[in-house]
Formats: sequence, C-alpha cells, structure tokens
Amino acid sequence: MQIQSDKPKVGDRPSLADSLRQRRQRLAALVGFPVVLWSGRSSSRNFPANVFPFRASSHFLYFAGLPLENAAIRLEGGRLELFMDDGTPESALWHGETASRSEIAEQIGADAAYPLAMLKPRTEEAATIAVQDAATRLQQSHWLDRMLSPANQSQGIDLKLVKAIATLRLTHDEAALAEMRQSAAVTVQAHQAGMAAIANAATEAEVRAAMEGVIMANGMTCAYASIVTVQGEVLHNNHYHHALKPGDLLLADVGAETASGWAADVTRTWPVSGKFSQTQRDLYDVVLAAHDACIEQVRPGVEYREIHLLAAKVIAAGLVDLGILRGQAEDLVDMDAHALFFPHGVGHLLGLDVHDMEDFGDLAGYEAGRVRSDRFGLGYLRLDRPLRPGMAVTIEPGFYQVPAILNDPERREKYRQVVNWERLAEFADVRGIRIEDDVLVTETGHEVLTAASQLP
Amino acid sequence: MQIQSDKPKVGDRPSLADSLRQRRQRLAALVGFPVVLWSGRSSSRNFPANVFPFRASSHFLYFAGLPLENAAIRLEGGRLELFMDDGTPESALWHGETASRSEIAEQIGADAAYPLAMLKPRTEEAATIAVQDAATRLQQSHWLDRMLSPANQSQGIDLKLVKAIATLRLTHDEAALAEMRQSAAVTVQAHQAGMAAIANAATEAEVRAAMEGVIMANGMTCAYASIVTVQGEVLHNNHYHHALKPGDLLLADVGAETASGWAADVTRTWPVSGKFSQTQRDLYDVVLAAHDACIEQVRPGVEYREIHLLAAKVIAAGLVDLGILRGQAEDLVDMDAHALFFPHGVGHLLGLDVHDMEDFGDLAGYEAGRVRSDRFGLGYLRLDRPLRPGMAVTIEPGFYQVPAILNDPERREKYRQVVNWERLAEFADVRGIRIEDDVLVTETGHEVLTAASQLP
Repeated sequence: MQIQSDKPKVGDRPSLADSLRQRRQRLAALVGFPVVLWSGRSSSRNFPANVFPFRASSHFLYFAGLPLENAAIRLEGGRLELFMDDGTPESALWHGETASRSEIAEQIGADAAYPLAMLKPRTEEAATIAVQDAATRLQQSHWLDRMLSPANQSQGIDLKLVKAIATLRLTHDEAALAEMRQSAAVTVQAHQAGMAAIANAATEAEVRAAMEGVIMANGMTCAYASIVTVQGEVLHNNHYHHALKPGDLLLADVGAETASGWAADVTRTWPVSGKFSQTQRDLYDVVLAAHDACIEQVRPGVEYREIHLLAAKVIAAGLVDLGILRGQAEDLVDMDAHALFFPHGVGHLLGLDVHDMEDFGDLAGYEAGRVRSDRFGLGYLRLDRPLRPGMAVTIEPGFYQVPAILNDPERREKYRQVVNWERLAEFADVRGIRIEDDVLVTETGHEVLTAASQLP
Repeated sequence: MQIQSDKPKVGDRPSLADSLRQRRQRLAALVGFPVVLWSGRSSSRNFPANVFPFRASSHFLYFAGLPLENAAIRLEGGRLELFMDDGTPESALWHGETASRSEIAEQIGADAAYPLAMLKPRTEEAATIAVQDAATRLQQSHWLDRMLSPANQSQGIDLKLVKAIATLRLTHDEAALAEMRQSAAVTVQAHQAGMAAIANAATEAEVRAAMEGVIMANGMTCAYASIVTVQGEVLHNNHYHHALKPGDLLLADVGAETASGWAADVTRTWPVSGKFSQTQRDLYDVVLAAHDACIEQVRPGVEYREIHLLAAKVIAAGLVDLGILRGQAEDLVDMDAHALFFPHGVGHLLGLDVHDMEDFGDLAGYEAGRVRSDRFGLGYLRLDRPLRPGMAVTIEPGFYQVPAILNDPERREKYRQVVNWERLAEFADVRGIRIEDDVLVTETGHEVLTAASQLP
C-alpha cells in the first residue's frame, strides 16, 4: 500500500486524525469491550498474483481512514492501535517505497503501532466483524479462536459491536460528508459525460466507458458495477453489448467512490436520439414527479417508508392519468398494483457502501423491532427508519416493464381489473426508467448532494 | 450469467463447439481419468451483493469457452457434461432472462447438461484444479471429499491433470489465436489513445482513463491492473495520482482481455512533453534495440532463456556505449551487472492468463527438469523452455533506476568497478523504460500480435 502523502490539506476541516479520534470516542461511549477490525486482502482474479483492486473493509475504513491492505486496528476506550507490516526490500522492488507503519500511525492518529503478528495476543475478549475475503476471515477466526459468523448473523459482543457501528455510521460527520460531496461531484460529471457521449456512441459499452473514464480520471473507482443499458427493465443489468438505437431509452446507474471508500449513486435515463417519444416523455414525467415529491419530503422525523409509499402513490396516480391503471392511487398502492411497474424500494442508506452497511442485513436499514414486509410492494424496501440529520439516502423511483412480472399468470389474474393492458401496449417503447439522486438529511430539511446534475 | 447470443458468427472459423471438442479430445489423449473443472463465483467487494466483476477460472474457460458463473464441466474420454442451474424467477427480475442450461449446452457442444447439484455423485475418481475463490474451493473440497492444494502444489491425478493442461495450453489453437488477435488489436488502440491523450492530460489517472476507456468501449476488460506511471522504476506500480511534468517519461503497461478471457499485454514509454531529452532518447534506444533483437530471435527451437540473455547482453552493451557500465557485455551479463538496471525477466507465456498458467507455479513456464536460477539476473525469468509453434510470449526488456537496487550497499560494493556512478547520474531523468509486445511463435519464425502499435 502506497500512501499519497502529498495530498493537499483543506484548511477549515478537522484533520483525518481528529475526525478518526472523534469516531472512536463515540464508539467507546457505546461499547465497553475492545474491538479489532481487519482491513482485508486483495482477492485473486485468475491466478494468485493477478488480483482485483484492493477494497478495504468499510468498517475498517470508518475508523482507520486509509485503505491499508492486510492491516488491523484495535480500539479500546478511545485508544487506537495500528497493526501492519512495513514493506520488505522485495516489495520495494516491485511496488516501490511505501509509507512506513510509523508514518501511517501518525497520519491516522494511532496511539501505538506494531507489526501485524503482534495483534494475536491483543485479540482477547475483543469483538470483531467478519470481512469479505476468505483468507482474512480465516485469520480472524484463528486469532480470535472462534468461528466467525457473517456480519448479519453476529452474536454476543460481535452483535453489540454491529449495533454500535450501525448507530455511528447511520449519520455522517463532516469528514464523511466532505468525501461524499467529492464522489457526488465526480458522479455528476460522469453522467454529464455520458449524456455528451451518447450522440456518437454506437453501444452501451461506449457510453459506459465515457462515464467510468471520468471517475477513473479523477482518481476514484466505481462504487458498484455500473448499469448502462437500453434494457432498463433488467434491474441489475451488467451487460453492455447492445447497440444503441434511436428509439431506445438508455438507463445509466453509475456512481463514484473516493479513495477512502465514500460512495455516490446516481441514475439517469436519456433518449438515445436526444428526444423522447410522447409515450417516453409521459412516463418519464411520472417518475420525475415521484422523484421530486419524495425529495421534497426528506427531513428529520419523516419515516422513509412513507417516502417509499409516496413514490408508489405518485406513480400509481400518474399511471391512472395515463390510462394504464384504473382506480384510486391509494387503493392501487394498498393492493400493490404500483409494484407491477415499480417493484423495488425507493432507495437506501448511502455512505461507505453504496447500500450502506448491507453486510449487517437489515440491522442498519431497519429500526429496532421492525422487519421486512412480505408485501410485494414493500418487500424490497431496504430502509425503514425515521430520518435523522446526517443520514444520507438515495431517492430512486422508477417505472419498468419486467416480463417476469407482467407475464406472470397469477399477477395478470390478480390485477386483471386494474391494468388496462391494451393501453399499456402503447407504451412498448419504455422498458425501464429510473431517476436517482443522493440526499442528505439536514437539521431543517435536506440537501441534494448530486444536485448539480442536469436532468435531460 | 447472461449470454450474448446475438454475436455475429465468423464464417471461416470452426465453431466454438468444434474448437472445444478438439481441445477435450486432446485432453483425453493425455489423461485416462475423469476431470471436473469449476468456473468459480464472484468475490465480494465490501458487502456480499457488491461484487467484483466475475472472472471464470482460465482452465474452465479453456474447455467450456464461456464465462459461466457457478458452473462446472466434467470431461471424460472426449465427452463434455455441463453442470449449472437455470435462472430463478427472482434472478429474472434482477438480472433479466438468461440463456438456459440447454441453450448453453448446445452452444458449447456439451454431450449432456444437468443442474449443478447433480455433479456431486459424478466427481468420483475425478481430478480437478483449485479455483481462486474460497467459496468454490470449499465446494470442490467437499464434493471431492479431499483437501485441495493450490494448483502449484497439486498431487496425484491432480498433478497429472496440471501437466496435461499445461501441455495443451502451452500452444494455442486457431480459436485461441482469433481471440488473442482481438485483444491485441484493442490493446494497440488503447495505447494509441493513451499517446493521444497525453497532450491534454494533467495526471497519470487521466491517461489511464483514456486507455482503459478504449478497452471498455470495445466490450473487453483489463487483463491485469494497469500500470500508467511516471515512476516507471516501480515495476508493479498501481497508483495513478502523480501529476505529469514536461520532463517525465510515462510508462504504460496496459492490456485487454476478451470476454472469454484471452489476454494481451503491451508496454510503451513516452515522453510527457512529446519529445525525449537526449539522455532519455539514448536509453530508450538501448531498450528498443534489445526489444527488436529479441523479437528477431523468436522462432521454433530457440531457448527463451537465450532470448532473455540476449536482452541482457544488448542492454549491457548499450550501457557500455553510453559510459554507464564498464567492460565487455558478456562479462557484465555473467556477473549480473545488467540486472542492476534490468532486474526482471524478458517476458512470459501469454494466453488466458496474462502470465499464462502462473497458478501452476513454474510447471507451465519451466521445461520438466529445469528450476529457477538463484542468480540475481535470472531468478525472475518466468519462462525457460524451447519455443514451439503456437506459443505466445511477451518480449519486454526494460531499463530502470530502482533505488532499492542501486542504493543497496552490498550491490554498490560488488559492482563498484563496473558502474560509472557519475555518468549514471547524468541520466537522472530516466526512472523507468519498458517496451513490450506480444509475439506468437509460428512454424517458420514469429508474428508480432501487437505489431500495429506505433512506437513513439
């Protein structure tokens, strides 16, 4: 790991070391036991030395601030101990001179720093969270001398730690927001580049390249596998080979992540030709109305579930206006008819993970005592909490014609009365539309972090 | 896994199914036991659902041809059985309709196809090769009921399989070469884009983005972590944050990989300003002379080790001419003085892996009975075999000023007499130069797969 030590410092922001100190003091107020967090190691791609880019564990990044590979930190009573090995002469040949353990310790404000092997005797009675890569998870299990469960099934002190970290990471401090504003700004640039590229692009892949190129040129990585597709109805579509045809809509869900891991997550849907058809414009306006209405509602105290239901209602009402659905919007939402066309939740937490803390399962997204609904129109809702200042969420309503849903005989029978299938057929040139922004809950309302983006 | 079924077919090439049939018939001629090869699964990045791009095992790709996730094949006596699950209704919602098992079976010419769970009883007495991801490796161990060793430590029938596959994959068939010509062509385009971008680029990251953008726009991935750096002396440098300054050389080692895994691997070194200084030009010409002389020697029967030593000799002679080294080139190479400035091997096998079959350790790269030298100037040589028609190798000599080598007191003492350190200091504006192309051994000589690239 080479550390970029020549980064300019921003004058009126607390230093990295100060921000991290505050985070671990807040942790110390919540748990009385020691905590050990591992950063993880690179995963091999096709042979051991050819690895995927290293991505440190988000929980490690939250308290250690830097993407150190194969390192660990021990936190207790607000103290930070760093465990990592210095580079070897061999690694200096292949990977260059790297920042030393003591240099890094100073940068992150560690109280002490040791070689990694010295961590083992310091793991006693410590809680931890399982990392994603198996090699490190094995080391965690060995050193803690217990089988580790995945984070969403943690028990005992590990579960207490999960809950404490979820509490801390639910709302973002200034250091986090400074990072998120950077990834949001680059993400907006990437979408602008995508819109500019479409005039000369022949395939989805070319638009994707233009967008990810902006992220890469800014020294960031993609926070998740980009979706850049004319088949917007495939919700997690990671293929990019289709040709762009003039009548297509292109759905681009692309977000940047800063070097220390803070994510953005934005979706736009544009007409390939530069001009919507009337049917595309009509449905786009329905989704946009839901998007705008939901963002308008974001403020402290509002239940995120209500924002989801508002999106459902606005979409249902819009589809009634267009003659696609029949009935009253509220009744249609009660019977989940909106979910025929809007089958996912209106958004999720955003932070170090694009679905923040999703490794905790619903422990982060769901208020204590609440569980996922088994309703078709609510089961994919990833966040069910009252909003609080400092939370960042996405707002991302959509309209899709998913064959697996619309051709399902049971659903066709159940919604026989409320869908005008003939009318729907007139909107065949709309496969999927989604409009997504990142919204910070402020003390008095909200701030759209990705606001500079230009809607088509 | 969604299969791109609308790919145009090339008329005068054998079909994928025919090529794969020939490969497994050649395998059947070498081993008498059944073989089961797993494709592997995606590795998680920061939470389970946020994964790195899937990369199938190269050995699976060689015999199955398609990057199917979580699939396996069983080969016996030239027969191919495919084991994979069809998509679920849930996966159709999120990932779209995918090619069915039977469609894929037909495409790859499988003799039979079953759900994955039916593989377990068909693994008896079967040899295999450990994949890279731990989850699949665990399944391999469970189903074969034995602890799997990494591929480079295989034993028994697994070791026999490793040797058989190494024999097959050492030389490329027409289907493989068709793929490699595609990745080579896109890689050349990427380097041309990098050279064009440098005029307006302020950082390494911007040049990298221009290069990788070409690879992505062509529907390919990077075969390895790109090196795009003004610190060319850091051999595996994966940082891209440095500003480009007019006096710098930029070293770009970037290669594409086709969707089915076939790699290219090219390095060029350009002056940021568009114009070499005299010292840069002098050393560039030394490396270029080595590059050209080595490629000239590539033909059947030639020992790759001799090509490496030729590179060492040309570099040593060039450095003598420039007054940096003192003595006769042959003597200097005998004492490894060239390795002060050219510490790595002249290249490696290329195929489905950028260092082809490096998961086998030296079993693929080294002729039976040969082992790595412990000489400073030979220890990093990855290939030591006589060249044969159908082999693809890289030729990549270089010149570097690596502080970890040049400032080492022992080496300074050992090479006191043969290095003119004062003269060397005049070349301080050269940190690293490498020139790399991909070369196919033909029946009568060689073909440079990446020949269309324009040297600066």
